[in-house]
Amino acid sequence: MTHTIDLNADLGEGAGPGRLATDAALLPLVSSANIACGAHAGDPLLMAEVLTLARHHGVTAGAHPGYPDRTGFGRRELGASAPEIVIEVLAQVGSLRALGRHVGHPMRYLKPHGALYHRLGRDQETARALATALAALWPDLVVLTTAVGVLAREAREAGLRVAREAFLDRGYQPDGTLVPRGNAGDLLHDPTLVADRAERIVCDRTVETGEGTRIPLQADSLCVHGDGPAAVALLEAVRTRFAQRGITVASFAPSATFPS
Amino acid sequence: MTHTIDLNADLGEGAGPGRLATDAALLPLVSSANIACGAHAGDPLLMAEVLTLARHHGVTAGAHPGYPDRTGFGRRELGASAPEIVIEVLAQVGSLRALGRHVGHPMRYLKPHGALYHRLGRDQETARALATALAALWPDLVVLTTAVGVLAREAREAGLRVAREAFLDRGYQPDGTLVPRGNAGDLLHDPTLVADRAERIVCDRTVETGEGTRIPLQADSLCVHGDGPAAVALLEAVRTRFAQRGITVASFAPSATFPS
Amino acid sequence: MTHTIDLNADLGEGAGPGRLATDAALLPLVSSANIACGAHAGDPLLMAEVLTLARHHGVTAGAHPGYPDRTGFGRRELGASAPEIVIEVLAQVGSLRALGRHVGHPMRYLKPHGALYHRLGRDQETARALATALAALWPDLVVLTTAVGVLAREAREAGLRVAREAFLDRGYQPDGTLVPRGNAGDLLHDPTLVADRAERIVCDRTVETGEGTRIPLQADSLCVHGDGPAAVALLEAVRTRFAQRGITVASFAPSATFPS
Amino acid sequence: MTHTIDLNADLGEGAGPGRLATDAALLPLVSSANIACGAHAGDPLLMAEVLTLARHHGVTAGAHPGYPDRTGFGRRELGASAPEIVIEVLAQVGSLRALGRHVGHPMRYLKPHGALYHRLGRDQETARALATALAALWPDLVVLTTAVGVLAREAREAGLRVAREAFLDRGYQPDGTLVPRGNAGDLLHDPTLVADRAERIVCDRTVETGEGTRIPLQADSLCVHGDGPAAVALLEAVRTRFAQRGITVASFAPSATFPS
Repeated sequence: MTHTIDLNADLGEGAGPGRLATDAALLPLVSSANIACGAHAGDPLLMAEVLTLARHHGVTAGAHPGYPDRTGFGRRELGASAPEIVIEVLAQVGSLRALGRHVGHPMRYLKPHGALYHRLGRDQETARALATALAALWPDLVVLTTAVGVLAREAREAGLRVAREAFLDRGYQPDGTLVPRGNAGDLLHDPTLVADRAERIVCDRTVETGEGTRIPLQADSLCVHGDGPAAVALLEAVRTRFAQRGITVASFAPSATFPS
Repeated sequence: MTHTIDLNADLGEGAGPGRLATDAALLPLVSSANIACGAHAGDPLLMAEVLTLARHHGVTAGAHPGYPDRTGFGRRELGASAPEIVIEVLAQVGSLRALGRHVGHPMRYLKPHGALYHRLGRDQETARALATALAALWPDLVVLTTAVGVLAREAREAGLRVAREAFLDRGYQPDGTLVPRGNAGDLLHDPTLVADRAERIVCDRTVETGEGTRIPLQADSLCVHGDGPAAVALLEAVRTRFAQRGITVASFAPSATFPS
Repeated sequence: MTHTIDLNADLGEGAGPGRLATDAALLPLVSSANIACGAHAGDPLLMAEVLTLARHHGVTAGAHPGYPDRTGFGRRELGASAPEIVIEVLAQVGSLRALGRHVGHPMRYLKPHGALYHRLGRDQETARALATALAALWPDLVVLTTAVGVLAREAREAGLRVAREAFLDRGYQPDGTLVPRGNAGDLLHDPTLVADRAERIVCDRTVETGEGTRIPLQADSLCVHGDGPAAVALLEAVRTRFAQRGITVASFAPSATFPS
Repeated sequence: MTHTIDLNADLGEGAGPGRLATDAALLPLVSSANIACGAHAGDPLLMAEVLTLARHHGVTAGAHPGYPDRTGFGRRELGASAPEIVIEVLAQVGSLRALGRHVGHPMRYLKPHGALYHRLGRDQETARALATALAALWPDLVVLTTAVGVLAREAREAGLRVAREAFLDRGYQPDGTLVPRGNAGDLLHDPTLVADRAERIVCDRTVETGEGTRIPLQADSLCVHGDGPAAVALLEAVRTRFAQRGITVASFAPSATFPS
């Protein structure tokens, strides 16, 4: 029996000299690139540069829209209404989609960023409005999100494919949600532990919680956060482990199929 | 014999309370709306609001991309390279296109704004790069621009339809170019004179220069600038004259055909 | 017995052609100009233009900082921490202060905008942090805000002068707070009723609530909202009434003294 | 005989996770921090964070204003008028000044960024307008710029102190100007060569041109560009050399005096 899994990371979020350094280091290690769309980070030139790099590395391109809050890096909740969020996301995705076609590497999926990710995981009205709008414009789009949030359910209801995401460097609680940032056990830093976790998620479809129990976890893609150098170290450890275990890294889009 | 002509205006460029006041006053008077795309002016919410208003009034929606210079309102030349300009414009048009589909009123054409408009009228390398990129992504897009600039020629070469634009409230020079802003005779303010000019452009295909000579002018669309109240007064005078002369106002897109 | 009162309005919030039209119409009618500082609206050039106009009209200049949310016009609550808000406001006020000195019309006071205004009226931690920071940098600064909010109290505690604000075109509840936007009676549109209210606030120090009762209201400044044309009509009615009653309109800053 | 020299670098230009990584690596190596002011890069929170780090390391803080062109990183020339540039710079410096006072580490100097730096080096009208405005608002401000440009002369004329800057990793032409980017010999990458050059500038007051000749060069501060890791390597080589030669690294502000 063989296993295949996707690895995703957030890209196109830097600025200034060396803004592509992290992206260039991560792209050889992942199979999916979540590309910031100019609101919480990025701009058209950076988006095009990252798309071009992703094409070069054979990494699938996805949109990574966020709140239009550059100062807060899209991590602060914004009192936007559901229709406002839909419009904001469509504008961002529309930009990346045009640029992806321009550089010959079309966008295949969407993964929300930061506070928007969390809101779409729990706010059914907004998740439904967004899923419906996305399905109407881009029916082939895959939504990459946590399996336990409302966006996954609403996206499937709207007819979109969903790729389920697990986090390699975030602590899990017994109900399958993440240990909130700032709490004990919120982050994992040890490459060996992260590689262990990655292997178990892929092979056993379980993850260990902070309490030491194991819970089931279905994942089509694994995400690593952290700043550039730390993320690179974790991904290298995961890649090495996967090579040892015969686990293939490949994108979930465009050809993969997913349970609905 | 009957005449048909398009009237276009720049919309979605306001901000703050009453930001839609000018748009709401102009939309009943025009047949084409050049909608700012969030760089020199506008934002996703305003773009969606103007698209919705345009749909309500049966006004054709076009993208009005500009330099990403909000402070200078896109009127300052920016030392951007041709590839940079292509990417900037595609990102803006991609946003408006997604929002147009979302509100059920698709974008049909593109008219550049401000300093970008002028650059594309004289910089062949940039005009060609942009026309080629636009044709590859959106072959049905119409380009609205001055008949005498290089963008018109390059857009046709790339296979795009071109709508030729004349200005009702700007002075013309004998070579068919505009009297530069700040020079004597750059702007026309008298509604009667503007209505006279509009009639002659439509019926005689000529325009009077500042020197009093008449030159030929082929136009598919007529543009009025100026701030909101002044533009409304000029357009009302033009509309009244057109009603008296049996001239029909209608968009050049999507069904009209144009000389190549 | 004679009465003196300040009239304030929000300025520098427009964009595009005619962006100064509302400002130019309001400046002859007010004594204090709340100038947007480039975050929720405005940019350095517009700030300098409005400061210059205010100097010409003898209108006192104040900073009108808001959340860095141009799309939402600073009206959406943002999950920013108290220290983040302090830094954001200081950066905006520092910009306006430099420009005010440059054009020879120094900034004298601060009035928060939109969702920031409301948060500072109820969030003691943030109000205290901001008041302390402002007092350390600019001890002569006057804070213009509602008399019943926590910002007024915290500003006085920090040693800053406070000017208390009443709203001429917003409905009041029996506890002295405003009828929330979107509820019945939230907005007053009738110029005569607004002029009546202005006179009673100044002469009787009371205001009528939506229920028809009268409550005490201490105000050093009166604010009118609404878009440009409506605000102009209301202010003209108030000015006429004040002229009839011998009420003087004058700024609360820099020379006025206030109860602490 | 002992020598003292300043080392400066551009900071606060990053974004996203790890945006402070370069800053944290450079601050132990420099004596002056040119801090981006939110236009070409940076935002109020990042500015405050870098100011706080600079205070911690005893590094003098300076403003690093640039064109409001985030996409182009302030490196594209912008057709702004001299008065527009003055207003833009004052707004940026006013922000940083307020934040510097807030965190207890006042801004002491100004160094323009990118295309603005180059324009101020050759455009006398703009340099004079800016120098006059800066001197009126902040007479103690030091201007850090190239000795051969017009800004140095105009700043002195306006009564401001000037610190003269040399570049350690850029090629020089016989007339004392830099080899333009993109030309052969524009950039130096070898740490030993850069350390040699630094020593000669400090001890001999000369620099070697690309043609191999030596020209006189007066410098109060030495700048290293390049992305983060490369700049760190160069600065470490320079620091080691300076320690060997007994050259002291210290800021030119606030206590140093300069030739006028």
